[in-house]
Amino acid sequence: MDVLIDGAWRAADAESEFYAESPATGERLDRAFPVSRWNDCDAALTAAADAAVELEKAAPEQIADFLELYAAALDASAEKLAQAAHEETALAVSPRLKDVELPRTTDQLRQAARAAREQSWRQVRIDAQRNIRSCRGPIGPVLVMGPNNFPFAYNAVSGGDFAAAMAAGNPVIGKAHPLHPYTTMLLAQEAHKAVLASGLPPATVQMIYHVSVENGLKLAGDPRLGAIGFTGSKGAGLELKRAADAAGNPIYLEMSSLNPVVFLPHGMEEHAGQWANQLAESCTAGAGQFCTRPNLVFLLGSGAAEKFLQELKGIFEGRTPAPMLSGAGRERLHASVRALRKAGAECVTGGEFAPGSGYRYAGTLLRLPAERFIAGAREFLREAFGNEVMAVVAANEAELVEALELLEGSLTGSIYSSESGSDEALCEQVAPILRRKAGRLLNDKMPTGVAVTAAMNHGGPYPATGHPGFTAVGLPPAIERFTALRCYDNVREHRLPAFLRGSGTAG
Amino acid sequence: MDVLIDGAWRAADAESEFYAESPATGERLDRAFPVSRWNDCDAALTAAADAAVELEKAAPEQIADFLELYAAALDASAEKLAQAAHEETALAVSPRLKDVELPRTTDQLRQAARAAREQSWRQVRIDAQRNIRSCRGPIGPVLVMGPNNFPFAYNAVSGGDFAAAMAAGNPVIGKAHPLHPYTTMLLAQEAHKAVLASGLPPATVQMIYHVSVENGLKLAGDPRLGAIGFTGSKGAGLELKRAADAAGNPIYLEMSSLNPVVFLPHGMEEHAGQWANQLAESCTAGAGQFCTRPNLVFLLGSGAAEKFLQELKGIFEGRTPAPMLSGAGRERLHASVRALRKAGAECVTGGEFAPGSGYRYAGTLLRLPAERFIAGAREFLREAFGNEVMAVVAANEAELVEALELLEGSLTGSIYSSESGSDEALCEQVAPILRRKAGRLLNDKMPTGVAVTAAMNHGGPYPATGHPGFTAVGLPPAIERFTALRCYDNVREHRLPAFLRGSGTAG
Repeated sequence: MDVLIDGAWRAADAESEFYAESPATGERLDRAFPVSRWNDCDAALTAAADAAVELEKAAPEQIADFLELYAAALDASAEKLAQAAHEETALAVSPRLKDVELPRTTDQLRQAARAAREQSWRQVRIDAQRNIRSCRGPIGPVLVMGPNNFPFAYNAVSGGDFAAAMAAGNPVIGKAHPLHPYTTMLLAQEAHKAVLASGLPPATVQMIYHVSVENGLKLAGDPRLGAIGFTGSKGAGLELKRAADAAGNPIYLEMSSLNPVVFLPHGMEEHAGQWANQLAESCTAGAGQFCTRPNLVFLLGSGAAEKFLQELKGIFEGRTPAPMLSGAGRERLHASVRALRKAGAECVTGGEFAPGSGYRYAGTLLRLPAERFIAGAREFLREAFGNEVMAVVAANEAELVEALELLEGSLTGSIYSSESGSDEALCEQVAPILRRKAGRLLNDKMPTGVAVTAAMNHGGPYPATGHPGFTAVGLPPAIERFTALRCYDNVREHRLPAFLRGSGTAG
Repeated sequence: MDVLIDGAWRAADAESEFYAESPATGERLDRAFPVSRWNDCDAALTAAADAAVELEKAAPEQIADFLELYAAALDASAEKLAQAAHEETALAVSPRLKDVELPRTTDQLRQAARAAREQSWRQVRIDAQRNIRSCRGPIGPVLVMGPNNFPFAYNAVSGGDFAAAMAAGNPVIGKAHPLHPYTTMLLAQEAHKAVLASGLPPATVQMIYHVSVENGLKLAGDPRLGAIGFTGSKGAGLELKRAADAAGNPIYLEMSSLNPVVFLPHGMEEHAGQWANQLAESCTAGAGQFCTRPNLVFLLGSGAAEKFLQELKGIFEGRTPAPMLSGAGRERLHASVRALRKAGAECVTGGEFAPGSGYRYAGTLLRLPAERFIAGAREFLREAFGNEVMAVVAANEAELVEALELLEGSLTGSIYSSESGSDEALCEQVAPILRRKAGRLLNDKMPTGVAVTAAMNHGGPYPATGHPGFTAVGLPPAIERFTALRCYDNVREHRLPAFLRGSGTAG
């Protein structure tokens, strides 16, 4: 298959080829895709740097038009895209790919179009008295590396990072996730057509399928880049971070999150069954492969807690797990579960591959006394990416609080409590701890399901991300990641961008 | 001298001691200061982490009161502070330390107080329909390492980073610059008194004088920190960046800047003398030790250009250079000048130590054909921190543009041009290049003198700083560096901070 470089589909300079497979059957799909040599990366970087200069001259309307044309084209191809993504991910066409994820994706593109048109992301400040003016401008070419788990909504050429980078007028080099190259190709084809139709520089959107680890790191550290957006594993994220940091390239990472959920005791007495159902739903959606899926829950030991855990066990055991995205992903999940058990967690249910076609893993519930967690937190702060959850059972409130203090940064932190007010005192101890550890604090709600709203934060303290000040979801705030601050000091009026002219309002 | 740790002045756990000296005479001053062992750092980090938790409960008014009390105390001690700083830096009491830098410093503290009171830095977003709300909150304990060149305005316990970190409710651990420890002690004494008087946690402001390089790096990488603010050399900044990056600690660096100034040819015909005077003024202020001092100027060869260079030479030769801040700084300046000459720059004047007491260096003008610059830009992109400037003379417009394309990121970029409009075509080529390379673009104005206004950007692309999206000067924007994004998703009304309650305006 051809790569999209410098405004044209062309044969890759390939060092090897790879195939996607159907996770539903484990069989190799029949299209071969290239692993690009550095030559392809280099050509894309040069073309992107040139496109960045040209894009500075584009009107905001052109960028908005592109985003809207692209969104409309994706909506029009929904059936074909959903089928392709289903084939490569085994995620359901409905409800999910066609009627949930694709609409979310095109909604993001349209919100980005609106932000591009309104220019609200510019954050204009005018000090007319001193004739000093500032705004945000594009940061430069953005390399986007999408994850395996959202073939549309986080795809390198259609997802949140893509939309945010484009809204600020940055060209994007998308690196496909190798688990869904064909889906990415179909998306890139539509993006490319929309680029040409809207009159943007042809190299505004480029796409390569795969590169070696070495070339991936070389890409991240290339001075022609303005920034990098990465969603994926902590291991890969930290390697890319080292390469980008060494070159002074800002990198936005969404890496790893345990998403602790704390169930307070009085509420547990009232809602054990209902809470178990909500947790099971959240843990198993998408075969547990959501970055906001709860991996760690905390509760106080009690009869109700036992009922809750029994209920959860029953739900896990009564359900047929969906296939995971890849065999390698299942292996990693199993390795994590084994490591947690070896460290001392008891396996209440699951902990093994599940029967049926494709890469299925049994819904897994681990259990650990808070005392053990406290004694060896480091071993237990390990993400298990899949349908697994570990319940940490505290003997008393002090133990619960002590355990929570040992958490690292997460995308989310949730508190479930009684409506009666009887959990309030403990909540007042728990909430400030989770607040410091999580980008999004929730009440009475599971963290999966990230609303695309300006008030969202899909981010959080390290190691959930690389910087706690930025969100990957929610427009216009997510755009800020792909902007540089620009000040104009005493610049002559006619040389200023139009939106910076005049008297404005002082700072 | 005692260090300020955990709310009290106490004897340092010192591994050695050091002395400041008078740069005006080169003589050692008589007060000994401790180089703290890790024990002191560790105690300060723990106290700061605890103070951060307590500070979350402080009212915005308390933080504002602290900043205002502190500013008033500094104003009241202006004479004493200016004398102390003069003794340690040889900078003039007037005009400078007492009547320029200290008022700027207390103005920054008062602007920070205003921002703390108004809470504008919170950036509240409310999506009432979905009950999702977000704001910025404190990032956690901030380690501030101040530079040698502004003993008040960038001091670790009174400068811009300090004010911004405090405004967002973060405790600060200040590491004094070892060239002015006594000044820093006097400031910290006033800060500590103001902390106690305003009822903030006693460990809100802590100060140590000096640590080994090893312990400095260990500090930057400590997980108890929320962020680091550093102003200083590129070498030290990059070492700290590596340590902070590896730990996932956000670090804001202001490291190195050549601050290119481009003089366009028609304007040069009209203003050679005036421009030479402005440049000389900007290059020699503070003995050239400003981070925005122009180090590289670009011009087209012509009779007027020769007149300009002759004029500049004459001014440099006619002036007695002020003492630099340290002997080591003069050595580094001299090493840079030697390296630039060795690489091919011609020394028009200066290039040697100047006579007189203290560490004086002759005003130095180097000259280089643009062709040479283009052939070996890497060797010439070398900061000379002091009263040195290198003129790059282009044979034609194409050469000028090619040379500018080779620049790295800078804090500033300036364009001087004719008022007649005759330089406009060339300006249109030059301006977009400088725009991409500099955080602040100036017209007809030297970059030294950084106005404290919300529209300022004292920042820029790497390696001027570590991230082009942030400014170190200008409130409230500079505060954003020391904040984390916090989302509240479905959090019960009474548990929300007061400013997030109610319906607000969606998105």
